[in-house]
Amino acid sequence: MASTKSIVPEFEAANEKYAASFTKGDLPLPQDAIVLVCMDARIDPARALGLEEGDVHVIRNAGGRASDALRSVVISQQLLGTREIVVIHHTDCGMLTFSDTDLKSKIRSDLGEDADHIAFLPFKDLKQSVRDDVSFLKKNSLVLDIPVTGYVYDVKTGKIEKVE
Amino acid sequence: MASTKSIVPEFEAANEKYAASFTKGDLPLPQDAIVLVCMDARIDPARALGLEEGDVHVIRNAGGRASDALRSVVISQQLLGTREIVVIHHTDCGMLTFSDTDLKSKIRSDLGEDADHIAFLPFKDLKQSVRDDVSFLKKNSLVLDIPVTGYVYDVKTGKIEKVE
Repeated sequence: MASTKSIVPEFEAANEKYAASFTKGDLPLPQDAIVLVCMDARIDPARALGLEEGDVHVIRNAGGRASDALRSVVISQQLLGTREIVVIHHTDCGMLTFSDTDLKSKIRSDLGEDADHIAFLPFKDLKQSVRDDVSFLKKNSLVLDIPVTGYVYDVKTGKIEKVE
Repeated sequence: MASTKSIVPEFEAANEKYAASFTKGDLPLPQDAIVLVCMDARIDPARALGLEEGDVHVIRNAGGRASDALRSVVISQQLLGTREIVVIHHTDCGMLTFSDTDLKSKIRSDLGEDADHIAFLPFKDLKQSVRDDVSFLKKNSLVLDIPVTGYVYDVKTGKIEKVE
């Protein structure tokens, strides 16, 4: 469970150090690609993929789901010119542990609120979820016909495995 | 404009190095906090805030908009126990450069498609956009009553400035 200590002072102290030696104030635009990754704390896309500031757009949400990333993908492609997408889901993902109905019941019971307007997008099969999201991006008429590659990231080994 | 060279081989090579010295295969769960940041390539939340693998959930989308992050925030709080949110928008953001109507017209003209079902969520005032998103999270009945702090990240200096 969460501690009562705010993370904000730590962030501010770390950022002061970062900014003190910051040399990347004039990075080139635009970028070539989007990386779509789960929000999971165990994944650092920059370290895991060798990204430097300025390299790619990074979209992250629960599960790294493509339908939930559509607004950002369209903006990235239409206004900022990206022309490739890499989708990364991961082992031991929280999205494998619940159903949409379960979560809606929990919210109704714990918060007294109705969340029927939200699709929480959990999945039962990890590799299939990658295939589904690659396919969603390849078929959606608002997404350009560009290369889309899908991986599973293993949180135990730090390794990505190509799925699609 | 985008190059024709795929980023995938670079990612795979970098990941091989990362995994070869990976020692974080048993990170503790759950996390305390969510960081909600724009997808902009110039921002590396981990380096800018001193994050290590395992520290926080990172949600990223175009603009770092809260309403588009709602699904992920609810999952993070309800199923994974996070109890704090930090919102970070940034200077020179693409979201300051267009209107919802403009983008929908461009899509109609370039793709021959109707995007009227998507709210692209651009903004005209950067600090106000942070205040709006902090306020959205504080008021939304599906989001727990927890600390929410808002910052602007300066892409020229690497520095975060507290707004709310």
